[in-house]
Parts: sequence; C-alpha cells; structure tokens
Amino acid sequence: MPLFNRLIAEGIGTFWLVLGGCGSAVLAAAFPEVGIGLVGVSIAFGLTVLTMAYSIGHISGCHLNPAVTIGLTVAGRFSKVDVFPYICAQLLGGFVGAIILYLIASGNGDYDLASHGLASNGYDMHSPGGYTLIAALVCEIVMTFMFIFIILGATDERAPAGFAPIAIGLGLTLIHLISIPVTNTSVNPARSTAPALIEGGIALGQLWLFWVAPLIGAVCAALMYKQVSAKN
Amino acid sequence: MPLFNRLIAEGIGTFWLVLGGCGSAVLAAAFPEVGIGLVGVSIAFGLTVLTMAYSIGHISGCHLNPAVTIGLTVAGRFSKVDVFPYICAQLLGGFVGAIILYLIASGNGDYDLASHGLASNGYDMHSPGGYTLIAALVCEIVMTFMFIFIILGATDERAPAGFAPIAIGLGLTLIHLISIPVTNTSVNPARSTAPALIEGGIALGQLWLFWVAPLIGAVCAALMYKQVSAKN
Amino acid sequence: MPLFNRLIAEGIGTFWLVLGGCGSAVLAAAFPEVGIGLVGVSIAFGLTVLTMAYSIGHISGCHLNPAVTIGLTVAGRFSKVDVFPYICAQLLGGFVGAIILYLIASGNGDYDLASHGLASNGYDMHSPGGYTLIAALVCEIVMTFMFIFIILGATDERAPAGFAPIAIGLGLTLIHLISIPVTNTSVNPARSTAPALIEGGIALGQLWLFWVAPLIGAVCAALMYKQVSAKN
Amino acid sequence: MPLFNRLIAEGIGTFWLVLGGCGSAVLAAAFPEVGIGLVGVSIAFGLTVLTMAYSIGHISGCHLNPAVTIGLTVAGRFSKVDVFPYICAQLLGGFVGAIILYLIASGNGDYDLASHGLASNGYDMHSPGGYTLIAALVCEIVMTFMFIFIILGATDERAPAGFAPIAIGLGLTLIHLISIPVTNTSVNPARSTAPALIEGGIALGQLWLFWVAPLIGAVCAALMYKQVSAKN
Repeated sequence: MPLFNRLIAEGIGTFWLVLGGCGSAVLAAAFPEVGIGLVGVSIAFGLTVLTMAYSIGHISGCHLNPAVTIGLTVAGRFSKVDVFPYICAQLLGGFVGAIILYLIASGNGDYDLASHGLASNGYDMHSPGGYTLIAALVCEIVMTFMFIFIILGATDERAPAGFAPIAIGLGLTLIHLISIPVTNTSVNPARSTAPALIEGGIALGQLWLFWVAPLIGAVCAALMYKQVSAKN
Repeated sequence: MPLFNRLIAEGIGTFWLVLGGCGSAVLAAAFPEVGIGLVGVSIAFGLTVLTMAYSIGHISGCHLNPAVTIGLTVAGRFSKVDVFPYICAQLLGGFVGAIILYLIASGNGDYDLASHGLASNGYDMHSPGGYTLIAALVCEIVMTFMFIFIILGATDERAPAGFAPIAIGLGLTLIHLISIPVTNTSVNPARSTAPALIEGGIALGQLWLFWVAPLIGAVCAALMYKQVSAKN
Repeated sequence: MPLFNRLIAEGIGTFWLVLGGCGSAVLAAAFPEVGIGLVGVSIAFGLTVLTMAYSIGHISGCHLNPAVTIGLTVAGRFSKVDVFPYICAQLLGGFVGAIILYLIASGNGDYDLASHGLASNGYDMHSPGGYTLIAALVCEIVMTFMFIFIILGATDERAPAGFAPIAIGLGLTLIHLISIPVTNTSVNPARSTAPALIEGGIALGQLWLFWVAPLIGAVCAALMYKQVSAKN
Repeated sequence: MPLFNRLIAEGIGTFWLVLGGCGSAVLAAAFPEVGIGLVGVSIAFGLTVLTMAYSIGHISGCHLNPAVTIGLTVAGRFSKVDVFPYICAQLLGGFVGAIILYLIASGNGDYDLASHGLASNGYDMHSPGGYTLIAALVCEIVMTFMFIFIILGATDERAPAGFAPIAIGLGLTLIHLISIPVTNTSVNPARSTAPALIEGGIALGQLWLFWVAPLIGAVCAALMYKQVSAKN
C-alpha cells in the first residue's frame, strides 16, 4: 500500500478516535438524567479503535497513536523510516477531529470552551479526581505498558487471527474504565495533543506528561513482550 | 437469492432497527431509577444491526439504511437497478416498526404521542440538547461518513472475514454514544422517516435534513474509501 | 452425543440463564447508588446465552428455551422426538436456578420473597411499567419472533461460522433493553416458569401468556425464515 | 514455551486482573455523578481476562487464577507439576497489582486505605449488601463452578476456535453482574488474596472462604464437564 494512502488512513482513524472519544465525553457524558457517564465514554474510546482496526487495519495497520507506532517499531514490527510520517498524520488527524468536535459542541448555546473544554488530559488541578503528578505518571506509564503489551500479544502470529481489533479496542475501553478519574486517560500523545492545542492554558502546560509517560510505557512493553514471548 | 426475498429481509431488518432502537429509547431509556439511559439506547441501536447482519447478511447484504445502499452503490459494490426497491423495502419495514412500537407504547396509560413521541430526529428546538441546524448538519454528515467508511472497510475482502457485523454494529453504537444529544442520531433516512410520519409536526418538518446529510456523508465516504484503499 | 448428556447440558444452561439473568435483577439491579439497572440486567441475560452457547453448543445445541426448541423443530433443524425431553430438562434446570437464587437472596436480611420476588414476568398490575395485556402479548410475540429469526439466520450454514453465539446472546440483550418495562421480558417459557412457581400468586396466574406468546412468535419466525431464506 | 516465560506471563496477567478489576472499583465506581457503577466494574474485570487471553493465551494458557489452574488440572488439561509455580506466579502478580493500585489511589488526597480499601472480598459485615456466610459460600461455589464449566466448554476442541477469550471474559463480567452485592465477587483466590494482604483486618480474616469456595467449585465443574462432554 502506498505511504500516502496509509497516512490518510492513519489521519482518518485518529480523527475518529479524538472526535468519537472526546466527543462522547464533551457532548454526552453529563447529559441530564440519561447521560452516558464514564462507562459510555470508555466504551466510545474503545470502539473508535475497534471499528477503525477492522476498516483500515489492512491499509495502515491502524496505529492511531504515536506510542503504538513507537512500541511496534521497538518490537521490530514496524519500519523505522515510516515512524515520523505516521506520527505527523496522527497528530494532524487528531487535530482536525478536535476542531470538528469544537464546531459541533459550539452549536449548543450553553457550551463554553473555557469551562467545558474538549476532554483534555491532566494531573493535579486538572485531574478529574484531583490526582497528583506522581500518580498520573505511574498510571499513564502502566496503562500504556499494558495497552502496548495487549497489542503485541493479540497481533502475534500465534494468537487467533482476526480477533486482535476486539482485544485491542476493548483493552482501551478497560483502560478508560480504570483511569479516567486519574488523568482523563491518555495512553496516546496524539489524543492528548489535539484538545490541548485548542484549549491552551493548563492543558497545554501539562501536555509533556502525556508524551513522556506513554512513550516510556510503550518502549518497556515492547522490550518485555519480546522477552516473554521468545520461543527459546 | 431472488429480489423478493432480499426485499423481505431488508424490510424485517429495518423493522427491527426502528422497533429496537427507537423502542429502547421510548420504552426504557427514562424508566425511573433503573432506566437504560443513552448508553442503553446506543447499545440497542448497534445490536439491531449486529444481530441482523449475522442473520440476513447472507440473504440481502443487510443494508437497512438508504445511505448504506447509496454508499455501497457509489463504491461499486451494489447494483444500481436494486437501489430503488431496497430503499422502498427499508422505508416500509421501518414504518411498520414504528407502528408496532406505537401500539406497544400506547399500552401504558401514561404514554402520549404528542409529548413522548417515537424517538424522532431533530435540530434546534427538536434537538435533545438544543443544537443548531448547522451543528446538526455537520454532525450527521460526519457521522454518516464514518459509518459508511467503517462498513466499506470492514467488508473489504482484505479485512478479516466474518467480523464485519461486529465492527458495523458497534460502530453504530459508538455513533449514538457521541451524537444522541445533537440530533437524537439518524445517519439513516429510513430510521428518521418512520417516526416522523407518525409524529408529524416538527419531526416531519425537519425530516429533510436526515435525508440530505446522511446521503452527502455516504457519497463522500464511498469516494474517499475507494481512493484510500486503492492498491496502487 | 447421548441424549442424557445433552439433557444435562440443557439443564445446566437453563439453570445459568435463570440464576444469572433473574439473579442480576434481584441482587444487583437496584443496589444503592451503583446498581446495574436495566442495562446490567439486559447484558446479564444475553451473556448467560452467549457463554453457554460457546460451552455447550457442541453438546446439546444450547437451546435453553422451549420456544427455541419448538422454533428449530418447525424449521426442520431439530428432531421431533427430542422436543419433550429437552423442554423438561429446561424447566427442571430453570427451577433449580430459581431455588439457588432464592437461597442466595435470602442471605440478605432485607430480602422478602413476597415484596421483592424473583424477577417473574407479568402484565397489567404485574408489568414493571404498567403495560396492558394486549401490549404484553404483542411485545412478547414480536420479540420472540425476532429472537428465533436471529437464531435461525445466525446458525444458517451460509452465515459466518462461529459467530452465532455472539449474535444470539447479544440479541437477547437487545430484546431486554427494549422490553423489560413491558413484561420484564420473557421470550422464554422456561425462564418465566421457574420464578412463577416459587413466587406463586399473580406471577403464576399470568404465566400462561409467557407460554402462549413465545410459542406463537417462534412458530411464525420458523415459517418466515424458511420462506425468506429459500434459495429459489 | 519455557516455564519461566509462562510464569512471567501469568504474573503480568494476574497483575492486570487485580489492577484493572479492583482498580476500576476503587478509582471509578463511585466517581460523583458519572461513576461507572457495578456495571463498569463488571465489564472491567471481564475485559482484563478477555484482553490477556488474546495476548498471552499462546504463551501460558492465561489462567490468572488458582481455581482455573486446579480445574484444568482435574480435567486433565494441565500438567500437575506446573500447578504450584503457576499459583505462586499468580499470587505474586496479583500482589504487585494491588501495590500499584494503592500507589495510584493514594495520589488522591481523599483516599484512605482503612475506609476505602482495595476492593477486597467478604461476607456478613464485609459483604457489600450484607449477605451471610452461607449465602456467600453458596454463591462463590456456584459462580466458580459455572466459570470453570464455561472455560472447559469454550476451550473444548469441538467449540469454535478463537472465541474462547470472548466467552470466558464476558462470563466473568456476567458473574460480577450477579454477585458483586453478595461477596464483591471473587471466584479467584489470587484476586482475593492481593487486596486482603494489604488491607489486613476483616478482609484477611475472611480470606479463607475465597480459597475454599472457588476451589470446591472448580473441582466440581471439572468432574461435571468431563462427564457431560464424554462422547460415549
């Protein structure tokens, strides 16, 4: 598949991850009486990946996440020369997703960017449950470690074929069920960057953690999975 | 498979989509204390498609939606001569679904068509969250675009066989998790037409948008997927 | 597989359906603040069937429901001579499930059989949402019709192999998402009989409907599916 | 696969089960207004097993649970000599999961180990719904019996290949939907031991039940499944 097509696919997929995941949080989580809550947001994030993995997996591999791209590269499953263009496509797609979300959300007279935001990630004052920087750092490293570990295992040639998108998508749902209160859940620098760029302020100031922690987790997971799964 | 059988299958399937999706909203969403909320309605809409795709996919292809039929046709996957009969069968099936739903709902003394409705779609005054026409238009175009893109990708011969109903059904669940507050979620002119015909009034007056936006989204998705997935 | 083994499997499976489905309703639906609500009960009923279909499908076919056994027989997929023993095994298994549920529920000092019941089905005064006999009858016939239609379609040799338990289990979840408020959802005479026998009173007096309606729905679905799916 | 690698895989998997399952309960279940409730916790526990089964099933078989290891051994599907090391790896992994959970939870100033705990299991005073020891014993035996029965059935060579992780993971979700109010749901001695060791007190004093009951259930299920599934 030509690189350009794969980059378009990565862009559309990350657009969907940000629009669908952050969108469910901004538009529907706290809808009066019947809102979807954190369960609904967790399902939404996971399903963006599940649906895209089945529809563009055969085109680009469906990373949608710089931590995934880096993790697969460290594990020897992805070509180094495509890392930079993939990450750019993910960032661009995510950014467009956040723009479209802002456009839709603004169609409600009560919506205000400063007070409602776009579901950015954060710690301390900006953590949904008021968790410290250390807790956020540990949480994002461990969650990304497990996410990349699941991806590497479920796409291993010894795992049952065709089921990886279910394991990976629902794995992301699980990670959100655990950690939204801590950091609003990132495990994906592209997902964090898009709303932070539009929100600015504290979201942008804390963005560094949502690059550092996921990348540490991803590299550790790749090294661990290679060891654990080695046949001899 | 003879056209008549395929039309019956499309009719039953769209009957189920409207009865199940709108039915869960009308009957169960706001049930006191333990109601299913927007999460339950989102799951219900998605599962109508998932269940039908496994049970009539081998008969009619399980479109259940004029936007799907048009999208598949533009993508070169469906025969032009069957478009009109398919859409008629979908509209008729959906209408019968709404009639049966009304019959059941009326069995509750507190139900009143004028105030409770049949889960029709709308914008401005008739949007669940009060979103403007522009927000509704953007939302329905983008959501249908992604729905058709998921369908074309998941049913691509290069995607894992057998999993498409999961990706497509849960994709519709995801779309509802995001966009019920905006338009009550259509992405399907047949789903919108059925309750609008019975409710009349504002629902019928705003029905045009739920034909125009999904069809625009569907055509764009078909053109985009053909480009992105081209092997050279 | 010997008939005795298949009957044990049907008994265990229907035991699980009643214990798991009705149990989730009695024990967890209205738990203060964090109860699972009708969404949780709907998921539970569906998962009893999904889990059993994967674990005893290769032993007994996993009917767990007299309406399924009758529907499959009318459709020519099940042997007439096994119908009666299968239904007996289902009734016995369901009854034991209700007994065990009562035993566990009674371990809570606040539980009282007369006021809390065992999640029996009903209409009018005994309908969760106060729906009339006619609404209940229509609802149960239509829901069972669609349930058997999904089963026949998803287990058709032309449908993707291995996925039927997902379609059927989640189909039962969907049916509960729609119709718990109407009749507490049966579509299964064995599921209705078990709690009615222990609760007695109004539940037992209304039990007839939850045999008549599901069986009508099942027979109609079998005849319809045979027609619609005929290759010529 | 070398034993050491399999033990590391079991350790990571049980780490994930405890961190993800208990973590969702401690961090997100009762989050104000939009908390995930018992439905979210049930989904989380199930998804820890589903995700691990797809990613380490081909390495260690993905038991993550001494009751599963014992059940498989009694059923003749696992080698006796590996039972003790497997259980040690599960206990160690679960313990590390509980430690990391405690570390993250403590990052919230309002968290207090004595009052909030780590989602340990219990009966009587320590049962979420105040259920007696007898109810807890019956419930844990029956739930583990069905869990192991599902595992043995879904991994039977006659069951559809590749789907077992879905049946088993969602089976654990179902078990939680039923029984969290009774015992906070164990069916897994390693999952119970980890938080009990850190919480101490009543959780540690009641830990015996969450070894005895699951092991009884597992042995009975193994004997039953062998009988029921015997071909002649």
